[in-house]
Order: sequence, then structure tokens, then C-alpha cells
Amino acid sequence: MKLESYVSGKWVAGNGQGRPLVNPTIGDVIATADANGIDVAGGLAFARKGGVALREMTFAERGVLLKEIANILIANRDTYEEIARQNSGNTKLDASIDIDGGIGTLKYYAGLASRLGDAHQIVEAGQDQLAREPVFFSQHFWTTRPGVAVQINAFNFPSWGMWEKIAVATMAGVPSFAKPATATALLSFQMMKDVIEADLVPAGVLNILCGNGEALLENLGPMDSIAFTGSADTGHHIKSYQTGAQSGIRLNIEADSINATVLGPDVVVGSPLFDLAVKEVTKAVSVKAGQLCTNIRRVLVPKNLIEEFSAAVADKVQNLKVGDPSSEETRVGPLINKAQQADALSKIELLSKETNVVISAGVPADVYEGSSFVAPTVLVCKDAKEATAIHEIEVFGPCATIISYEGFDQAIDLGARAKGSLALSLFSNDRDIQSAAYCDLGPWHGRLLMVDEQVGKNHTGHSIVMPQCVHGGPGRAGNGEELGGLRGVRFHMQRSAIQSSPDCLEELKKNAAEVAL
Amino acid sequence: MKLESYVSGKWVAGNGQGRPLVNPTIGDVIATADANGIDVAGGLAFARKGGVALREMTFAERGVLLKEIANILIANRDTYEEIARQNSGNTKLDASIDIDGGIGTLKYYAGLASRLGDAHQIVEAGQDQLAREPVFFSQHFWTTRPGVAVQINAFNFPSWGMWEKIAVATMAGVPSFAKPATATALLSFQMMKDVIEADLVPAGVLNILCGNGEALLENLGPMDSIAFTGSADTGHHIKSYQTGAQSGIRLNIEADSINATVLGPDVVVGSPLFDLAVKEVTKAVSVKAGQLCTNIRRVLVPKNLIEEFSAAVADKVQNLKVGDPSSEETRVGPLINKAQQADALSKIELLSKETNVVISAGVPADVYEGSSFVAPTVLVCKDAKEATAIHEIEVFGPCATIISYEGFDQAIDLGARAKGSLALSLFSNDRDIQSAAYCDLGPWHGRLLMVDEQVGKNHTGHSIVMPQCVHGGPGRAGNGEELGGLRGVRFHMQRSAIQSSPDCLEELKKNAAEVAL
Repeated sequence: MKLESYVSGKWVAGNGQGRPLVNPTIGDVIATADANGIDVAGGLAFARKGGVALREMTFAERGVLLKEIANILIANRDTYEEIARQNSGNTKLDASIDIDGGIGTLKYYAGLASRLGDAHQIVEAGQDQLAREPVFFSQHFWTTRPGVAVQINAFNFPSWGMWEKIAVATMAGVPSFAKPATATALLSFQMMKDVIEADLVPAGVLNILCGNGEALLENLGPMDSIAFTGSADTGHHIKSYQTGAQSGIRLNIEADSINATVLGPDVVVGSPLFDLAVKEVTKAVSVKAGQLCTNIRRVLVPKNLIEEFSAAVADKVQNLKVGDPSSEETRVGPLINKAQQADALSKIELLSKETNVVISAGVPADVYEGSSFVAPTVLVCKDAKEATAIHEIEVFGPCATIISYEGFDQAIDLGARAKGSLALSLFSNDRDIQSAAYCDLGPWHGRLLMVDEQVGKNHTGHSIVMPQCVHGGPGRAGNGEELGGLRGVRFHMQRSAIQSSPDCLEELKKNAAEVAL
Repeated sequence: MKLESYVSGKWVAGNGQGRPLVNPTIGDVIATADANGIDVAGGLAFARKGGVALREMTFAERGVLLKEIANILIANRDTYEEIARQNSGNTKLDASIDIDGGIGTLKYYAGLASRLGDAHQIVEAGQDQLAREPVFFSQHFWTTRPGVAVQINAFNFPSWGMWEKIAVATMAGVPSFAKPATATALLSFQMMKDVIEADLVPAGVLNILCGNGEALLENLGPMDSIAFTGSADTGHHIKSYQTGAQSGIRLNIEADSINATVLGPDVVVGSPLFDLAVKEVTKAVSVKAGQLCTNIRRVLVPKNLIEEFSAAVADKVQNLKVGDPSSEETRVGPLINKAQQADALSKIELLSKETNVVISAGVPADVYEGSSFVAPTVLVCKDAKEATAIHEIEVFGPCATIISYEGFDQAIDLGARAKGSLALSLFSNDRDIQSAAYCDLGPWHGRLLMVDEQVGKNHTGHSIVMPQCVHGGPGRAGNGEELGGLRGVRFHMQRSAIQSSPDCLEELKKNAAEVAL
């Protein structure tokens, strides 16, 4: 099977040989993807034209569209779960995070859009009087950019990654050109195929390119945007397109980062917070085989707790069943392909040089030769002052490093040494510790999860991206910002200061919803 | 005289020969600037440390500091006006826009900061409940980035450009490293010298580099930022630093753009709006000798009015006195140096190929040989469909092109052909025309000035940047955003989603001002 692309309102195949998509549990090739010879420049122009129809719809109408898309996906959910198992090696839980995460985000934005009602633009509260006479004021309005949103997604979320970006762009009135990572593109392709066949989306509003996406980067104009999720290295490559004639392109980058969780100095062995932290670290080396960009890579633990904490984590991790994701008992599936397996193993090797291994089985013995498994790995670093690799190298797989700290100031220093991350979590009941983490580590993180006993087990997890909260991080994480409810539409709209008479501003406000972004 | 730099708390001179600063009315060298051999990396580290003291101050305390800075500048205003005349060729009006614009912006931000009171952070209104039990919520907070704000300014605003950036960074709690354009750095240097000597700013909070600034770009970390104002070409060069190890640096670009003003189809010859538009275009080819990044470069006029409008503008422009800026009668001073004069003249030549010249005297006859004058130039383009240079080439001097349009749809099309601009203005009483301009040209502009008869002469001008309104534009203009009241602090702070218990969020809010940005 060769994946087609939906470009200029038609399903088309590339004319090249294509790259293989494999089943990582076995190693079989299950499809190929190729975009050679496809008229991408024409497809982008077609998508831009499609934006006219979308912009003519009210926010509420766009909300209805998002809800209908979600319903199509719900109706075909079983097929998607099977694809997620075959092409991504997902367990049922792994598949649910990706598939139901995508559907949930679509439904959430359907609701938000509906609440904005019959408007087409957004207006901010408040006017400033700019002249002595009360006849000249300024107010800030948001209008939709008449371009196309190119969305380059990572292999670990072929569903959620695609739909969270499409949900926000569609709500804002901007057509989407999805470019899934080739390795796991089958799910993105099938979902898009089902939605397109349902014939509810105006022409040009949804587009997908399966295969090499370089042509998408080369044909953009000043009102187009690129939203990229993936490695920091690929992020740099994409940035290089943002110069010269293409300098006006807007760019949002979500790069994987060396996220940390912190056990507060107030936590004692065996307490509810201690157990919750152990559970969260265990999830970090099992769920989706550790392939989440928000995942915990570093675990900062007070020096006096390091033995007990490591032992408690080891105790849980050694019972995690690694193997065929279709088995109900399996907790850890394979990485998505051989290249990722090799990359993870070589990086574990690098981290091992400055850490002690608590648990690491490398490649399990009882698996198919063509498979891509990596067993859960927990490392311990007792000399955080000297170590560098643990803060700089991301193993994109089931591996976490427990790091000892002395005094909360050192925990803060270590937290920042990843140079900017997507998410940090803290397990503590101490308000001063929470406050210090927020003040000093806030600027380094897009999201901070603070679990105390009032929250208990009712938190949504370190790694789970909630559409209500901004997603993205400063520095190494790319300085991006997605989602966060209405905040996400900023990327697709332009804020302009309108300076005019009270009567003119009153007229413009008739078609605008007043909200803060 | 060799300008020194204020780095690591000391005034230091470079060890190179330096580049000359000239008096453009005569051509004399009045100073040199050089930064060779200065320890810029050390200076940046010193500035970052200075941020600690600034972040410990409340918003209100930072407001007091800004007010004190403004008062120092007010006390020395006469010196600055003289420097502006000597180094920038400014008339009294030109100098006032730069000097009083800077002082006014400092005072405006002093007031804003004062209103935020004793807080150190910002919190957004509203929480989202994330769990079934009401024990886990998210709310968005803003914390100050612990880095340094590198501020690279354009030669046309050595005062306003420096202080508008410092005002916002200081309010946000971030130390500033100013890098004025060398050609007109004398005013920036003298103002900074006076402020530093008054000894009211904590060490490291204000820094200035006079001379080549490349070293500032090469030594930045993930919490540092660059705010650049200048040409699109230099903007591309600065972007190239934003890759590899420095990829986390935040960047804001304000590039000059081919801004337009539009005469609505409802305007009739001799009406108040007609006269106001003529006045505004006349200002565009006289104030600051046309050297404003927001300046009107294109004037879109209905086809049936083109003769009368051109004649009315020509009538005003031919009476503008060009010459020594110290003369009270002078309306148009010189460009800032010979290089800018040559650049403007060559670009007028390029535009002349697709336009007719209404008024153009080139270099006036009765000036010093070493001077840099360009006489006001008005061009007319009657075939806008074929012309391209008028939308792409910016003459950074006293030149504007009047362009004929047929039907308002064409005006919108022509407006967007500059590929994104800082400011657009519209002279019209027609609500539908205002609405169309806002909907279709809003996404292409950071600011839209709409003058109707209710506004009349009470507007603040097409080119004047008010601190209440966002300044910046999409596409070619750099996709940046500065000022806009509180909105400006976004660049210097990090928004983070905090997910926690109601009690924890309540604790964090104690030190945060609740406002929208």
C-alpha cells in the first residue's frame, strides 16, 4: 500500500519509490509513503483559496465543523486503534492517548468556538483615548491571516499531533496543510481519508502531504505559517527557511526537551506524594515506550531519599511487561522503528558514562529480530554538579535519570540546566517550595504541574497535554506556544491597533467577540 | 571625541580606530565610535546578574525608576536637542519627536508599572477545572525571564528607539543592553551617560555598546532576547544567529516597510478628509526628512481624484524649505549621512522607471558639499497593475508615490502587495469602507489609523508610534510586536500554565497582578 496525499482537492500518489512504514513489533513493511512529483506549490495556492470559505464562516459555524470531524473519527475509532498497534506499536492505553487525545481536543475547540458565537474577529477589552478631545481612541482587534498553516508533526502522535493543530487553525479560520512524520503516517492518512470522504469540509480547508515535506517549506508566502513539532535539530533546519524572501513566515516550534520532575524536600518515604511520584516516573518509562516530548527525563530527588526512591521505582519498573502491544498484559511496546531503537540505545550508552544503572535490560531477548524494543531503563546520578549529558541528551524512549540534589536551590539550578523545557512537575506540600519553583523555574517552562496532597491522584499527569493549558516551552524547547484554549488562535490571527473615532470602533466591534487571548 | 561604552559597570573605550559620526548638514566628523576589544561576553554576564536586583523590585518600584530616568532626561533636554541637530540633522520638530517621544514613553510606562502595584508577576483571569473533583485547576501566570535584553536600534531614533525598548524591559524586570546605530549614537551615548551619572539605576540594569555589535549577538543564552529595529536585510542577518546552540534566543524584529495611506472612494476634492490626507502626505516627505520606519511610502488614491490630489500635494511640497535644520523656516533637514543620501537617490531612480515625477529636485544646489540633503520627492503611478518596485522598494527619505486605484477591491489588493507593513491609514467616512479595510488589510498591518470627520484633525498621525498601541507588523515588517501598553512585557516574560490545587494557586496569586496582555 502506498499512502496518497490530499492536495488541490484530489488524492494523489507520488511518483517515487517511497519510504517504508513498518510494524515495529515484527519489522514488516506495512506501507510506503512518497510525495515526489506532487504539485505542492499548486496545493498551497488551492489551500489559501480554501481559506476564504472558512473565514466567511462564523466562529460558531467553525465549531460545528470541528464537532462533525470529531464524530467521524469516533465512528471509526476501532480501525484507528488497530493501525496504532500496527504502525506505532501502541498498547491500548498508548493508542487511546493519541486517538482520544485528538478527538477530545477537537471537541474542546468545537465548544470554545461555539461560545464565541456569530463573530468573525476578536476584540480586546478597553480603549485608550489618544487625543485631548474624546473623538480619537485606540482599541486592539484580531483578524484572521489569509494564509495556509503548514503543520509538521512528530512520529509519536500521528492523531493528536495532527488534530490539535487542525483544531486551533480551523477555529481561527485558517486552512491546514498537515505533514505527518512518514514513519507513522498511516494513522494520519486514514483519519484524513475518512474525514474527507464524509464531505463536510469546504474545499482546500484540510490537506495532507504524506512523504517528504521539503516542498512545503519552499513555497510559502508572508501570510503562511509553519507549526513544527519534533526534534530541536529539525527545528533548526526549518528555521533556516525563515530568511530572505520567506522572512515573513510565522514559525512555532515545539521541540522535545529534557523535562524534569522534582520531589520536594518535605516529602517523606512512603507518604502519598512519594508514592505518586514513583507512579509518575514509572509511567515515564512505560507509556508510549517513553516517546512523548513532554515526558519526564530527569527526576530530581533530595539526597537523603535517593536510595529509597530509586528502589521504589526499580520495584515497579521491573514488573513492567515489555512485548507485543496487542497483549493485555503488555505495558511497554516497541519504539517506532529500528532507527529510533538504535538512537535510544546509543544515548543510554552516553548517559551511562555519568550515571549508575538501576535497571536496564537493553533489547529484550524474546522478541522478533526485526522489532524495535528497548527495555525500561532507570539511571541514577549521584554527582549532579559534574554531570552534563543528563541535562543535554534526550533519550527518546523508556529511560529516566534519577538525580540527587542537596538543598532546593540546587534543585532549581539543575532544573534550569536543560536550557528551557516544555513541562516541569513538583511533588510537594510546602507553599514556599511551590512558590520558589514557580518564581525561579517558571521562566524556563511552558507548564508546571504542582502536585500536593489536596490534588493527590486527581492530577492529569506530567506528560499529558491538556488543551486548556498552553503547550510549548522557552529556550531549547523552541520558544513556541500552542493550545491554551483561546490563546492558541493568536498564532493564526494578527493583532492590530485600530486608531479611530468612537463610532468607527463601535461599528468594527459588531462582528468581533470580546475575549482575552 | 570617541564614544565610550558602558559595560560591566564601567565606561570603556574600544581599541580600534572607530567609525565616524558626521554632522550631515555640513559633513564634518563630530565623533567616532568603536567597540573593538571590549569584553562583551563579560558585560552580558554582568547585566544578567543585574537582573536579580531588578526582579526583586516590585512593578511599582520599577515605575518609580522609569520616572526618575525620565526626569534626568527632561533636565538635560537642551543638550539633546543640540546633539540631534548636529548628529542627525534634526529640525526642532524632528528632535522633539525623538527626544520627547522617548521621555513620554518612559513616563507612560512609569504610570503603567505604578498601576500594577506591589506585584512581581502577572496572572491571567480565570481558571480551568481539569479533574472531576474540584481539587485540580490550571491558571496561566507570567514570570520574568532571567536574561538580558539586547536592543539593536535604528539610526533614525537614537532617543525614542532606545528608551521605548528600555522602558518596557525595565518594567518587565529585564536588564537592557542598548546598541544604538553607530551613525547617530552620540545622542544615545549622552543620554545614557547622564542617566548613569545620576546613580539611580542598580548595577547591570542599563548597559550600552557604541560601535560594532556583532559580539552582542555571539554571546547569548536561552533566556536572552534580541529586539531589533532596522532594515529587513539586517533583520535576516540577525535571524541567522538564532540557530544551533543559540536557538532558544527570543527575537523581535521591527523592519521598515512600504506603508500606505488610502484615500477612500467617498472623499471629494476640497473636503476636510481630502485636506487632512494632503497634509499627512506632506508630512511624510518632510518630517525627519522622511526617515521613519512607519512613514507613508505609498498613497492610494481613487483614479478620479489623482490629478487634483497630486496637484494639492505638489502645491504644499514645493513650499517646503529644505536646508539647515537650525533655521526656524526649515521644514526638511538632511538625511543622516552620505551613504543614506546615495541609497535614497538610487532608489528614487528605480521608482522613477515605473512612475511619473510630480516633484523632485534631487540634491538641492545651495548646500555644503559634504552634506546629505535630498529634496522632497513625489511620484505618481497611474498603472498600478503593472508596477512592482513601488510595492517592494523603500526609499528611506522624503519620497512618496501616489498610486491610482479603481474600485476599493483594488486598493485592498495594492495595500497587501507590500507583503506586510507596520502601519496603514485610511481617510474615509464610509463605515463599509472602514470595515473592509479592517477585515482585509488588518492581517497585513500592526496598526490601522482610520481618520473620519469625527476624528478630524485630532488624530496622532500615520507615522507616530503611540505607546498605548502595539508597534510592529507581519510579513516583511518582521512579525514583531512592541509597546501596546502592558502587551509589550510579553516579550520579556514567560507565560506558563500552572496546574495545581486551589490552595496552591491562591498562594501564587498573592504576588501577581491580574491583567490581560
